[in-house]
Amino acid sequence: MTSTIDPKAIGKPPRRRHHVRTLTGYLPDTDESGKEKWPRGDEKTWKDAIRGPDTDTTSITKSVVNHVQTSLARQAYNLDTSGAYQAAALSVRDNLILNWNDTQLQYTRKAPKRAYYLSLEFLMGRTLDNAMLNLGLKDNYKESVDKLGFNMEDLLEQERDAALGNGGLGRLAACYLDSSASQELPVWGYGLRYRYGIFQQLISPEGQQLEAPDPWLEMQNPWELPRLDVNYEIRFYGQAERLNDGTPRAHWTGGQEVLAVAYDVMIPGCYTKSTNNLRLWESKPKRGFDLNSFNAGNYEGAVGESNSAFAITSVLYPNDQTTFGKELRLKQQYFWTAASLADMIRRFKNLGKPITDIPDYIAIQLNDTHPTLVIPELMRILVDEEDLDWDVAWKITTNTVFYTNHTVLPEALEKWPVPLMEHLLPRHMQIIFDINMYALSHFLQTVERKFPNDRDRLARMSLIEEGYPQQVRMAHLACIGSKKVNGVAELHSDLVRTTILKDFVELEGISKFSNVTNGITPRRWLDQCNPELSALISKTLKVDKSVWLKDLDRLEGLLPFTEDAAFREEWAAVKQHNKERLAAHVKATLGLDINTHAMFDVQIKRLHEYKRQTLNILGVIHRYITLKAMSPEERKKVNPRVVFFAGKAAPGYYIAKITIRLIVNVANIINVDPDTKDLLSLYFLPDYSVSLAEILIPTSDISQHISTAGTEASGTSNMKFCLNGGLLVGTVDGANIEIAESVGEENVFFFGHLTPAVEDLRHEHRYHPVPLEQKCPALARVFEKISSGAFGDAGVYEPLLATIRTGDYYLITEDFDSYIQALAMVDEAYLDRTEWVKKSIRTTARMGKFSSDRCIMEYADSYWNIEPCPVGK
Amino acid sequence: MTSTIDPKAIGKPPRRRHHVRTLTGYLPDTDESGKEKWPRGDEKTWKDAIRGPDTDTTSITKSVVNHVQTSLARQAYNLDTSGAYQAAALSVRDNLILNWNDTQLQYTRKAPKRAYYLSLEFLMGRTLDNAMLNLGLKDNYKESVDKLGFNMEDLLEQERDAALGNGGLGRLAACYLDSSASQELPVWGYGLRYRYGIFQQLISPEGQQLEAPDPWLEMQNPWELPRLDVNYEIRFYGQAERLNDGTPRAHWTGGQEVLAVAYDVMIPGCYTKSTNNLRLWESKPKRGFDLNSFNAGNYEGAVGESNSAFAITSVLYPNDQTTFGKELRLKQQYFWTAASLADMIRRFKNLGKPITDIPDYIAIQLNDTHPTLVIPELMRILVDEEDLDWDVAWKITTNTVFYTNHTVLPEALEKWPVPLMEHLLPRHMQIIFDINMYALSHFLQTVERKFPNDRDRLARMSLIEEGYPQQVRMAHLACIGSKKVNGVAELHSDLVRTTILKDFVELEGISKFSNVTNGITPRRWLDQCNPELSALISKTLKVDKSVWLKDLDRLEGLLPFTEDAAFREEWAAVKQHNKERLAAHVKATLGLDINTHAMFDVQIKRLHEYKRQTLNILGVIHRYITLKAMSPEERKKVNPRVVFFAGKAAPGYYIAKITIRLIVNVANIINVDPDTKDLLSLYFLPDYSVSLAEILIPTSDISQHISTAGTEASGTSNMKFCLNGGLLVGTVDGANIEIAESVGEENVFFFGHLTPAVEDLRHEHRYHPVPLEQKCPALARVFEKISSGAFGDAGVYEPLLATIRTGDYYLITEDFDSYIQALAMVDEAYLDRTEWVKKSIRTTARMGKFSSDRCIMEYADSYWNIEPCPVGK
Ligand SMILES: Cc1ncc(COP(=O)(O)O)c(C=O)c1O
Ligand SMILES: Cc1ncc(COP(=O)(O)O)c(C=O)c1O
Repeated sequence: MTSTIDPKAIGKPPRRRHHVRTLTGYLPDTDESGKEKWPRGDEKTWKDAIRGPDTDTTSITKSVVNHVQTSLARQAYNLDTSGAYQAAALSVRDNLILNWNDTQLQYTRKAPKRAYYLSLEFLMGRTLDNAMLNLGLKDNYKESVDKLGFNMEDLLEQERDAALGNGGLGRLAACYLDSSASQELPVWGYGLRYRYGIFQQLISPEGQQLEAPDPWLEMQNPWELPRLDVNYEIRFYGQAERLNDGTPRAHWTGGQEVLAVAYDVMIPGCYTKSTNNLRLWESKPKRGFDLNSFNAGNYEGAVGESNSAFAITSVLYPNDQTTFGKELRLKQQYFWTAASLADMIRRFKNLGKPITDIPDYIAIQLNDTHPTLVIPELMRILVDEEDLDWDVAWKITTNTVFYTNHTVLPEALEKWPVPLMEHLLPRHMQIIFDINMYALSHFLQTVERKFPNDRDRLARMSLIEEGYPQQVRMAHLACIGSKKVNGVAELHSDLVRTTILKDFVELEGISKFSNVTNGITPRRWLDQCNPELSALISKTLKVDKSVWLKDLDRLEGLLPFTEDAAFREEWAAVKQHNKERLAAHVKATLGLDINTHAMFDVQIKRLHEYKRQTLNILGVIHRYITLKAMSPEERKKVNPRVVFFAGKAAPGYYIAKITIRLIVNVANIINVDPDTKDLLSLYFLPDYSVSLAEILIPTSDISQHISTAGTEASGTSNMKFCLNGGLLVGTVDGANIEIAESVGEENVFFFGHLTPAVEDLRHEHRYHPVPLEQKCPALARVFEKISSGAFGDAGVYEPLLATIRTGDYYLITEDFDSYIQALAMVDEAYLDRTEWVKKSIRTTARMGKFSSDRCIMEYADSYWNIEPCPVGK
Repeated sequence: MTSTIDPKAIGKPPRRRHHVRTLTGYLPDTDESGKEKWPRGDEKTWKDAIRGPDTDTTSITKSVVNHVQTSLARQAYNLDTSGAYQAAALSVRDNLILNWNDTQLQYTRKAPKRAYYLSLEFLMGRTLDNAMLNLGLKDNYKESVDKLGFNMEDLLEQERDAALGNGGLGRLAACYLDSSASQELPVWGYGLRYRYGIFQQLISPEGQQLEAPDPWLEMQNPWELPRLDVNYEIRFYGQAERLNDGTPRAHWTGGQEVLAVAYDVMIPGCYTKSTNNLRLWESKPKRGFDLNSFNAGNYEGAVGESNSAFAITSVLYPNDQTTFGKELRLKQQYFWTAASLADMIRRFKNLGKPITDIPDYIAIQLNDTHPTLVIPELMRILVDEEDLDWDVAWKITTNTVFYTNHTVLPEALEKWPVPLMEHLLPRHMQIIFDINMYALSHFLQTVERKFPNDRDRLARMSLIEEGYPQQVRMAHLACIGSKKVNGVAELHSDLVRTTILKDFVELEGISKFSNVTNGITPRRWLDQCNPELSALISKTLKVDKSVWLKDLDRLEGLLPFTEDAAFREEWAAVKQHNKERLAAHVKATLGLDINTHAMFDVQIKRLHEYKRQTLNILGVIHRYITLKAMSPEERKKVNPRVVFFAGKAAPGYYIAKITIRLIVNVANIINVDPDTKDLLSLYFLPDYSVSLAEILIPTSDISQHISTAGTEASGTSNMKFCLNGGLLVGTVDGANIEIAESVGEENVFFFGHLTPAVEDLRHEHRYHPVPLEQKCPALARVFEKISSGAFGDAGVYEPLLATIRTGDYYLITEDFDSYIQALAMVDEAYLDRTEWVKKSIRTTARMGKFSSDRCIMEYADSYWNIEPCPVGK
């Protein structure tokens, strides 16, 4: 009789994952004459009802008030600042969406080749200010909000950072999205919608870092657009059976199926209608229940089991630069790459082109190795679902994927145990073995020919590292599966070519391996975070910011004004105001007073041994000892300095957490020492974030980027400081080198050993250790001070000091003296304030190269082969 | 130095739970002259921007299209029916919210006494149609949607039922909310926002019920308004320490704390601006993490632990009329009552009245015993947090709370093991013991005086039932903690007074124990589900529906028209159309053909032995046997009949599930038997829901309400059928009795033993069993047929048949013959079609009493003591 289900069919999914309905990307039908037909209903009724963006203050006010009334269900009587923020945000959101609609329709109409930027992290920060600025409507919103009885600055403070990233890699992805939209390029981002972003960092009075989750979605998020009907089924575990029918095909069945649901984040370009998309996936159970419990008749159990599906996107892993073999992390990676790829393929198929045309319509950029599973997943789709020959599939794949390497640190190179991969993704493990066999063996034959009997080389290059257990080398897989590979600064790209991927360069030729030096978006990192400087620049250049913000080389026009004393004064005044803004913020949030008439010296970034916050804090202690040893007369000549630290340590990173503890306890002592406190003070600002960076960066006189040479791939905060006229103190590492080339070596303070020396020095440390007292007496004195208990229980710091005393992998002892020297040069230079301001202006003026617009155009031209696709033109 | 947290303070909550900010219920300030001051910003700017509802087709169209553009980020090109539904719903929602705002502001301004209806279930069904009708805007929306290229009926079908209830109890709560708003009474509902509502019922081809979760929030729900900033901390477990300082106070600390977050559902009144609120609570972790793991430095663990907080509101228990000692269920009850009470008290405190005024401003209605914890929770707040004397607190409590009993079935009376309650709610267990001691002992002294040495009576009345383990009797607690107690139909209220609460009546006096016979809202259950009948009524009465729908006694005006043949024809035609609408629906959803030229006989309700679907299906088999025995000539005289069943069985209710199986398999046989199929067919429609009820009810010629006498408290579907002109076949039980009184006994078909006989009969069954063959030969033949394998493997049905053969607790054998007789009388009556239609008209005409408007006014006047508080008048 009546039946709506055949229980025997449960758990047997249809062969092809499919998408319920095409949400975006409809192509209008045309009539015989080629004119577009109106798709539905009465054209005039529709057109009369369609609205445009709100661009004048009156309609903006109406829109804000209407959102208060309906979306928030509030009234003037019970509207607080948080509600006013929500209402203003919803109004801005409407404007963004209207542009988004036009942009996406344009892409569909024109069907250009598109690029997809896959990043496991997008460190977006706040959106409201950026969106208003990019829309060119900030003044209108300010006025409107003001008339309604609120203050725009207060509203902006209500927004919670979208902190879906650990640091540089995630923030780079965010800058690239901004540039793609601003340059009107058809680029989408794909990532995960973590329920908890990077942890909130709390600092106990003893200096201990505590981590609290970041429930950033606790309040409604106006910046995302749930696309609950865009969803894909993603399989894990189960069985993969090769068909052995002469084809490379296999059936992958059983296991767990979860649903990936899309949330779209609008990415507005600067002064353009172009508004791109960042699609974030959320995991949830398929139908909200577990089939096994369901079939066993355990209803409550079935509902309960659903949690394991929600868990996939529940938390961003708070680790930076480390690998860890956690199954859930691998699940995240596959979940995300599979959903993203399914979405791209669906969109491609709407075009009605043959499947072999994929490389003409899709470019996939891997941001680090995290999305490397795109390669076996695309192979799986092409081979198992599209019935293509292996070679054809491989050709498509390797013409579609591009790989950006972000590190040469050995501990940061991703590897996954073969047994884990086999269990979670049985079909992908087969494909990886096949790639190793077919694709690599193809190479290997070449290798054999080129380097006969070089078995070592074969073992070095294999996708599988031998050992117990065997491991999959993701960087090798990413490399051989990609059309091009790049590093993120000249030095780093060189290291990629000469160290970790050397064998592949020798095999595949140097031209596959290239460089795109990182960049930053000047919209957020100058106009938004430093509005006074932005206004001064526009005024001075007599060029509207809508122009120079998108053509950053224009900043060179500032160079002649270095000789203009009035301009220099204005320039310095901006920096001073920014210092006062920071001081007010610190006073309000932490209750501390900061001396704004000192040099501001800033080091803000993830806490990591290779970034050497240790060198900095040891230098501070050294300075403190020196000051204490001075007579009051001598001290009068000293350049007062305020040192800022901010940054999070990975929760399990013991040494990094001790470093924070040392910083906090040194601060506790020196900030209250009457002899020195006016000359040297120290702050560890908790919970480093994009928003905190935006307040800190514009204040710096100098900033420190002092990684051991050869360890920092690029760095991007170095660029942000320099763009805001802060001078750079750094090692000859990462993008520091290119910054110096651009701004002129005379405007940066370099120190330390160079990359080629590092390996030798490490070797020396290991085999010919020299006692600290002998090698670096100044540092030895600092160690003595710490060990004397001057900063609390010395035992606490012992593990940190020990890493330097023995081994000293990051060459603190080697670089300490030259570091102190560099800081002395800074002091000296700072005495000549006029010259200093000139250096500052010159630095900003020559940072044009580091706009992420330049980077994204390089990717577009030399990698992805895509072109701008402007809207309404 | 810098510190934002003292880790030692973690886990030590402030003594009083507090609410972040008052969201609703602001009172405008006034100036010296008493004129209201504009609260914020520039008054004119605000007022110019404020919008009103959309009430003409043009602005409705604009609003729908604008929601397509912005809220959905779609365009005419990619709008499907589901999107069009969403957009129309969002537009209607805006209108509701504007009314909601005005209503709530009015309540705040006037500060009337309010009633709060606490129900663990609200079976709301769909909202869009109801909202448009109540707003009086359905025609405009229809026109607008039509012009945009869609069909309103299709849109309505897109909506998913809000099925947050098991059956009658939950649907009653929904009807009461509709009536409260329609009668402009200041009433709010409080419930839980289950992530999964009542399970979806699937029926396998063999007739097995399968349960699938109901992920009703999978798509965005336009009918709720998240109030993420209205939240309360709710504690579980931990320690309760009495202060022993001469006060009854205790400290409750430690344990688990979770957050209750409010979601508001707008409840529009019919043809009035008054729009009330249903506030549903969702559970989530406080700050998204578990403090213990957090303190132990286990970051990932801390996030993972949060699941236990989400679990509280994740699923509605799918059981009806049974108790079960599940901890999670008790957690749900406390979570919900504590959050609701905290919310009421906060609102009350805004008034600035002394705490002892609570009963003048708050009436709390307990819908069954599920919210009984309100009583000890209110005591806890008053005693522990407000420092009131026990007696004062008890007086406040017992003047504030009202209790509706819904069942006298012993297995349905809620009890909780003392050890479980002590573990989960240590403080409440103390308070319950104290109530037992103080309040009851006060009674008990009276008892002692009245009934000296009646120890049995003391044990019977105690809140604690002795045994291993001891149990808390929730009905006793609800009874002594309430101002008034009522049952839901005359017979049932009588049974409450004379059986389960007899001792309390003797003690506290009869006047505390009263009756409010259930009712139903004629808006949904006539105007919405049967628009043709509604139109015919308005036309005939010459009264606009806005009048008679709110004054249902007006239906009596139809009585004279029973003699109008043209009217009778129209009346019959409406029924016929409704049958065809159902047939089309069944064809579309199940692919089955239904003979619409037969009598429609409907039994739809939860599957339960006491409701006796068994009697019905056994009767069908009996009819089948009889038909089969007839000659073709005899069969020609038979009245063709289509029997419909629908209803869900609790997932663990074995006997009920066998009943479904039997129904399905009988259908499989008889629907294809060429001898009989035109005369008797049978359908089990899967997944009974409010929406299915809305299509089925208007089609019925007869409906069956055939519970064993004394078991059905009221029933409400009986009222719905009669209101739509379906005649009632029933036992002398629940509200059937009053329906018969109203519509006239000559218009209903009663059968079966009466309540007073039931106990005796059961006693006979137990001690003097008579074999089935002897007692009821007709039924014995039916059993033989089943056991012969006529409907598949007889072994499957054996457990069901055994319950009837031995014990027969629900008196199937006793009532079978009179049941068959009653059905024979139905057949006979149906032959005279003219008289039948007259009966139908008379039935509808005399159902005025059963409008839930009448019920809610009874509660308002005789229980809660609240008055209408109209808006904008
Ligand atoms: C919050 C945050 N974290 C990390 C980074 C990257 O810093 P760096 O390039 O110094 O590693 C940035 C860049 O500004 C940032 O804003
Ligand atoms: C879906 C649903 N379930 C249960 C009921 C209650 O039915 P009864 O009064 O027959 O128990 C109703 C009432 O119409 C209903 O609509």
